[in-house]
Amino acid sequence: MATAPRPLSPTLIFGLVPVACWFIVRPFLDPTPQLPALFISIGFSIFALLATLYLIPALGPTFIKANLYGRDLLKTYHTPIPESQGLICASIYILLLMLFIPFAFSDTILGSISNNKNEGISIREFPHYQLAVYLSSILSLLIATTLGFLDDVFDIRWRHKLPIPIIASIPLLMVYFAERGNTTVVVPLPLRFLFGTLVNLGPLYYIYMSLLSTFATNSINILAGINGSEVSQALIIALSVIINDLLYLPWPIDFRLPLYLLGNKAELGFGGVWSAGMAYGSTELVSRHLFSLYFMLPLVGVCLGFLYHNWYPARAFPGDTLCYLTGMAFAVVGIQAHFSKTLLLFFIPQIFNFILSCPQLFGLVPCPRHRVPRFDPDANLLHPSKTLFLQPPSKISDFVLRILATFGLTELTTHPSNGTILESTNLTILNFLLLRLGPMNEKQLVKTLIFTQIVGSILAFFIRYCLAGLVYDGDRR
Amino acid sequence: MATAPRPLSPTLIFGLVPVACWFIVRPFLDPTPQLPALFISIGFSIFALLATLYLIPALGPTFIKANLYGRDLLKTYHTPIPESQGLICASIYILLLMLFIPFAFSDTILGSISNNKNEGISIREFPHYQLAVYLSSILSLLIATTLGFLDDVFDIRWRHKLPIPIIASIPLLMVYFAERGNTTVVVPLPLRFLFGTLVNLGPLYYIYMSLLSTFATNSINILAGINGSEVSQALIIALSVIINDLLYLPWPIDFRLPLYLLGNKAELGFGGVWSAGMAYGSTELVSRHLFSLYFMLPLVGVCLGFLYHNWYPARAFPGDTLCYLTGMAFAVVGIQAHFSKTLLLFFIPQIFNFILSCPQLFGLVPCPRHRVPRFDPDANLLHPSKTLFLQPPSKISDFVLRILATFGLTELTTHPSNGTILESTNLTILNFLLLRLGPMNEKQLVKTLIFTQIVGSILAFFIRYCLAGLVYDGDRR
Repeated sequence: MATAPRPLSPTLIFGLVPVACWFIVRPFLDPTPQLPALFISIGFSIFALLATLYLIPALGPTFIKANLYGRDLLKTYHTPIPESQGLICASIYILLLMLFIPFAFSDTILGSISNNKNEGISIREFPHYQLAVYLSSILSLLIATTLGFLDDVFDIRWRHKLPIPIIASIPLLMVYFAERGNTTVVVPLPLRFLFGTLVNLGPLYYIYMSLLSTFATNSINILAGINGSEVSQALIIALSVIINDLLYLPWPIDFRLPLYLLGNKAELGFGGVWSAGMAYGSTELVSRHLFSLYFMLPLVGVCLGFLYHNWYPARAFPGDTLCYLTGMAFAVVGIQAHFSKTLLLFFIPQIFNFILSCPQLFGLVPCPRHRVPRFDPDANLLHPSKTLFLQPPSKISDFVLRILATFGLTELTTHPSNGTILESTNLTILNFLLLRLGPMNEKQLVKTLIFTQIVGSILAFFIRYCLAGLVYDGDRR
Repeated sequence: MATAPRPLSPTLIFGLVPVACWFIVRPFLDPTPQLPALFISIGFSIFALLATLYLIPALGPTFIKANLYGRDLLKTYHTPIPESQGLICASIYILLLMLFIPFAFSDTILGSISNNKNEGISIREFPHYQLAVYLSSILSLLIATTLGFLDDVFDIRWRHKLPIPIIASIPLLMVYFAERGNTTVVVPLPLRFLFGTLVNLGPLYYIYMSLLSTFATNSINILAGINGSEVSQALIIALSVIINDLLYLPWPIDFRLPLYLLGNKAELGFGGVWSAGMAYGSTELVSRHLFSLYFMLPLVGVCLGFLYHNWYPARAFPGDTLCYLTGMAFAVVGIQAHFSKTLLLFFIPQIFNFILSCPQLFGLVPCPRHRVPRFDPDANLLHPSKTLFLQPPSKISDFVLRILATFGLTELTTHPSNGTILESTNLTILNFLLLRLGPMNEKQLVKTLIFTQIVGSILAFFIRYCLAGLVYDGDRR
């Protein structure tokens, strides 16, 4: 059958379990590594991968029995596919994050290991208030998961869903407030003559944080519709955040890029055990990026495991649950580790997709329930799907659509005689890719999407580390 | 229709909203009350009551549409009744607990209020680690709710459900461990010659904590089956915990009971602004019992609101969600506020029901899927339901049942010639009450159950404050 569970090689479990165990045991062996909890986090992430790989197919029938299934819109068959299986990812992810608490925050376990006998910066334990921050983050993730799942069960309407990420961000905001979190931001150089160097946003900062959660969550949710699209976005973004975090850890190597050759003011150096990478000796920066890694590594684990079963042709669907979970996880690290601007740079394809979608989201252009590409079963190809104007578009809609068409972002079908717009392609990045690159099959399209996401991340790193010097002095994020 | 939503008087909302607002605003007015956050908690609890009262009927149709409904087994009609509506109680409860964070833990709000200008002990703010404890408690409640709801959706089998409360207690245990929680217990006087005064239970203490969660959760869940049974138990236990907490707060009154007349070593005194009730000046005891109140007051709010719609004839069913939520809430306060032994005393009817159920739970006596009393539609009366022995009982079963029958805990039907047991009444407290007090209708039975629970609590207070002196010295809990 086309939708029988994808087979799993037994060598995988025999190969990965010892590796994972080694990472978990390693901090307790001599010589103690620089960042013991990080090793444990990697070990946990491998277990997250394995658990997801095995549980997704195992629980498929249970989901179908509980009425949680869907049919693949872009296939010739109509077999029911388990839906909302992001719930399994979320359960594994949150359970592991909780079990990780003693390793990251306990004196008893880690205090006995390292006694500053390592060279360089050693992060032996988090301050106690970090535990509150960690717990509030898990709480936000769990609320996002629960509400995402309720959305799948109750099929909440689009307009009622929007506040869900705001509710999920309440624990973050409350703890941020109770801990008297910083609400000042650094003003970009060109605007300093107006606002000064630092400006205290006060309550606006809280609104910014909840909007960040809303954006991260919904932007992944609306870039959906083909096998593997949601989870692959999440995977690339998580990997980008991890690469960014790694730049701030104390590495035993040290190298510099001669960026002044590109016109930068200073050369870019990172690494060096004493300088703790780009943290330049700041213990706080190291601990923030460690915090981010603790959330991102297991997320990569569950996303990878899920992608295996969600890959074309999909054996499992993520449901809104996965989008809410991953979106909230990104918002959490962006907010708690204080790199929300850098984080947003990794969302370039999502931002593009959101802006492109705006005319449909805000009612200028008719928005059908599904905007997925149109499937041609004979050629097994996807074409851009179209939205039909039952009434002639208003002047604004007409104007917006013609501008979009000029830039090649949509294709219009006009009346042969009077030129009225009859149809336009649906305004999503997937239809845009099909429009510009020609029809392709679902697998090629998801690969193209992944490629776009990777290019977006490379661009993000370039902007962050090469161009940011133009608007921010020092090492602002 | 017999199951149309129960009407709500508009005077309720007009009457209660100003009262709730007054409690929330009061701490910001001069003179500042002794315990400002407690006022806000009471205000929130009134809002919890109102929200539950209005949302339960409002969301009923949504639940039925999402396949979450059941039919009342003990009624003549078969109208679908919304099931799992404990989810609404849980959502309101957890949301309010989160919104309460800044009031309980923020310097910004409460620091500006009180500056120790009050007479007596003033709890101005929690220590920071208390925030972690508070968050881990919410996390446990949220996990219990989510898993309870998943149980309702996926209809998890009895044996697979048992570990759910253990999973939900993980955050509690992890934070307890990370914060190096105390694992020593005071040994009762008669055992001191063996163990000494204090004994460190170590890992056993963690097992005790997760077993407490399991017991609190499942014992409420198995005392179910008639309208209002689950939520009324929870309500009485929560009220008992509140009364117990109030004994430890700094009251401006001061009175003593001459307990030495009853043979107690010392007289029992509480009250007095300087002695902080039974806390005898211990700031830690006051803050622990405040912590308990912050969880119990809104629980009473949602339980009262739910009971209104769950009262005979029920318009809404709680589902496992409510049992998990309330059970976990009790476990949380028992563990975090360190009065687990006192808490267990409030579970006397549940302990009785559990012990009575053991022969059926552990397979000595056949256990049908439902053990609710038998409904006689003509007389509108409930009779004890019976379980049928398809095979003659084993020797142990026979022995156990005959002992139970001797004490009047069950009624046996035996073969007229050889005396083999053919039938026994199901071993639950509800059937036991019907057996001893005769058939009654569902409303009378739930009232009897509530009465039993209240008598149990009075007994609990007597044991705790009058008899405990016989096995513990000082003021041990």
